[in-house]
Amino acid sequence: MTVVNISEKLALFSNHWSPRIIAQLNDNHVKLAKVEGRFPWHAHEGTDELFLVIKGTLNIDIRENGEERTITLSEGELHVVPKGQEHAPHCIEECHILLIEPAGTVNTGDADQVGTTGEWI
Amino acid sequence: MTVVNISEKLALFSNHWSPRIIAQLNDNHVKLAKVEGRFPWHAHEGTDELFLVIKGTLNIDIRENGEERTITLSEGELHVVPKGQEHAPHCIEECHILLIEPAGTVNTGDADQVGTTGEWI
Repeated sequence: MTVVNISEKLALFSNHWSPRIIAQLNDNHVKLAKVEGRFPWHAHEGTDELFLVIKGTLNIDIRENGEERTITLSEGELHVVPKGQEHAPHCIEECHILLIEPAGTVNTGDADQVGTTGEWI
Repeated sequence: MTVVNISEKLALFSNHWSPRIIAQLNDNHVKLAKVEGRFPWHAHEGTDELFLVIKGTLNIDIRENGEERTITLSEGELHVVPKGQEHAPHCIEECHILLIEPAGTVNTGDADQVGTTGEWI
């Protein structure tokens, strides 16, 4: 493992909602994703999930104590979605994000869809 | 836990080599530090350590297979120092970094100094 340049890694792919793995920290993967539009509601029962916005603005709808609210992250802002919390990220314009979660975490969580654990770039 | 703005957190402190905790991801702490000059050689026997440069340029001397080399990280670049590897970060001009490592990790590792696990801001 050597130096990882985030901009160079982001230039290697363009599809949305398809995280790429750029580093491993113990049992965790550091991932990059380009996102646009809405991602389905889901939760990760076993793990927290860190979102850090590299470029653009990301909204994360969350369900907490029976209510919905929206968290908005601008460039240079991060948020940790706690384990088990239902959430649904969305944005109007393309947004670039860095994610950290345990290796093998599926992006759709426990939702009834085909998800991905990401691939190395 | 809500939105964490990295720039706002960095404005809250000025001392060097004194990491502040800004978020928790499962058992890991996300930390910010301002650094300048040299930090002593040390290793973390039990854990990898992630360095991401927010501002400036960070050098990390590492000892690997009996040889020393220097890794240089610019803004937007990250590197994971693997567990057990001796390393010594240094920079000439002040540099702002984001660190991720298990909660309770002491910044001086197993070196014979008084270290810190960081405090929340």
